[in-house]
Amino acid sequence: MENMEKDLLQTIADIRGFMPGSAFSLRKNGEGIERHSTEHVRINAKLDKPGIDIIVDANTVGESLHIPVILTDSGIKDVVYNDFYIGENADVEIIAGCGIHNDGCDTSQHDGIHTFHIAKNAKVRYVEKHYGEGNGSGGRILNPVTIIHMEDGAYAQMDMSQIKGVDSTMRKTEANLGPHAKLVINEKLMTHGKQTAHSDVTVNLNGEDSVVQIVSRSVGKDDSIQVFHPIAIGNNKSRAHIQCDSIIMDHAKISSIPEIAANHVDAEIVHEAAIGKINSDQLVKLQTFGLSVEEAEKVIVDGFLK
Amino acid sequence: MENMEKDLLQTIADIRGFMPGSAFSLRKNGEGIERHSTEHVRINAKLDKPGIDIIVDANTVGESLHIPVILTDSGIKDVVYNDFYIGENADVEIIAGCGIHNDGCDTSQHDGIHTFHIAKNAKVRYVEKHYGEGNGSGGRILNPVTIIHMEDGAYAQMDMSQIKGVDSTMRKTEANLGPHAKLVINEKLMTHGKQTAHSDVTVNLNGEDSVVQIVSRSVGKDDSIQVFHPIAIGNNKSRAHIQCDSIIMDHAKISSIPEIAANHVDAEIVHEAAIGKINSDQLVKLQTFGLSVEEAEKVIVDGFLK
Repeated sequence: MENMEKDLLQTIADIRGFMPGSAFSLRKNGEGIERHSTEHVRINAKLDKPGIDIIVDANTVGESLHIPVILTDSGIKDVVYNDFYIGENADVEIIAGCGIHNDGCDTSQHDGIHTFHIAKNAKVRYVEKHYGEGNGSGGRILNPVTIIHMEDGAYAQMDMSQIKGVDSTMRKTEANLGPHAKLVINEKLMTHGKQTAHSDVTVNLNGEDSVVQIVSRSVGKDDSIQVFHPIAIGNNKSRAHIQCDSIIMDHAKISSIPEIAANHVDAEIVHEAAIGKINSDQLVKLQTFGLSVEEAEKVIVDGFLK
Repeated sequence: MENMEKDLLQTIADIRGFMPGSAFSLRKNGEGIERHSTEHVRINAKLDKPGIDIIVDANTVGESLHIPVILTDSGIKDVVYNDFYIGENADVEIIAGCGIHNDGCDTSQHDGIHTFHIAKNAKVRYVEKHYGEGNGSGGRILNPVTIIHMEDGAYAQMDMSQIKGVDSTMRKTEANLGPHAKLVINEKLMTHGKQTAHSDVTVNLNGEDSVVQIVSRSVGKDDSIQVFHPIAIGNNKSRAHIQCDSIIMDHAKISSIPEIAANHVDAEIVHEAAIGKINSDQLVKLQTFGLSVEEAEKVIVDGFLK
């Protein structure tokens, strides 16, 4: 593996190679190039379309899976379907992520359609980082679709971040929660240059005592544009808390369009959103410690997105 | 004037007659039936379409105008255009409101299109109450449109409430704020039975240091449906604070879809929304004072909408 590829893997998945001994799949430039399973976590290539099935046996506890994707050739358009079947009472961590290195003038695009089936009382922590780099003029585009079905008592934490370098993203997330299911989504996003980022999240609280918590933090720099559209629908006795905070810089434009709907008398739904520039008191304070304006801004932005 | 008409006026405008000595217009069943002006506040019937022009001279301070509308015949469909011209440095109060008494089986509908031109440093407090009653099966429909243009340093407070008895309402409000303009909107809404209420509010913060504050409180009972869609757009150095709180009861459905957009680095926009049922601690506490569940609910709902 080239160093550039190892660096991409480091950035998006905190690894530098194939992770022998644990379940693993690496997709590169539209093809699966390495894949291995463990006794209780099987990763199988799909036969009918591009992508993999990830099957976690019931009661599998403590395993960590890595399924990174990298695009290093310019002009690749990759569409992949990954299905996750998490068995009852399992408790696993899944590290996904997509890195694009584009030195060419053609657009590189990865559209990952991920569907989670999380069985009764199973727990999943899913981490997904998106990142673009390279000196080419070709676009770096990521359009992730995430669909989550949660059975009775299931728990999922989705940590989804777009670090930098992604020119255009259209993210769609849909979750359907059964009784006592709990979903936590932590979204972090930074855009710069002329980048655009859209994120639509729809959570259907169908089961009694289902809970969702969404925390979205973003920073928009330069001439970038961000649009957030989270929707929480309480169809049963349920609770939802959505919080969107954005820092606006330079000539960026940021919109937040949360939608909360209570279709049941025992649905409790709260939303908070704020868009504003960097706190000037913090800026001044850091500058008195000897930091330049740019350094002080970086400290604040990094802390905000941490 | 019949007692029923006086009671309607009392409910929507806190008056029981024609208010001699102050600027006044009463519209009944689609026709202007009484209108008088003062030296500095002129109310003129429009010549080209139904409605009135309300012209407040510059520097007019302390005057109070009443422009109520009542519908007492079943089957009336009234569309009216009212234009308000508030002169520089004026400071006035405008009491509007529409009451429908429908004892028949035909729909009674009033669509009021109100346009405000608020000049430099002028101040307006506008109060509008909507109310329906009567024993007929005919619908009581109110579709108000309010357009507000605010010049440099203008101030407007809009207190808009729908008390009860309105079967269907589609409210649209649009405001365009100049520099240093401040708009305060207080919206109160109660729906019951099979009523539906939609409220769209769009505020364009175009001027430097313009400010908007929207506080919306609603109670949805029985099988009623409410949809709130406030939009604040910061196109300049500006501040917006939107707060929507709703109490859901019985089988009501309530949606809140606030949209906040910052198109300028110095736009500060905050939104908060919450939908939930009546606080059960408060209910229990009031019941320990000897109130029935229904009485305790009424105390809490009335306090919330006060």
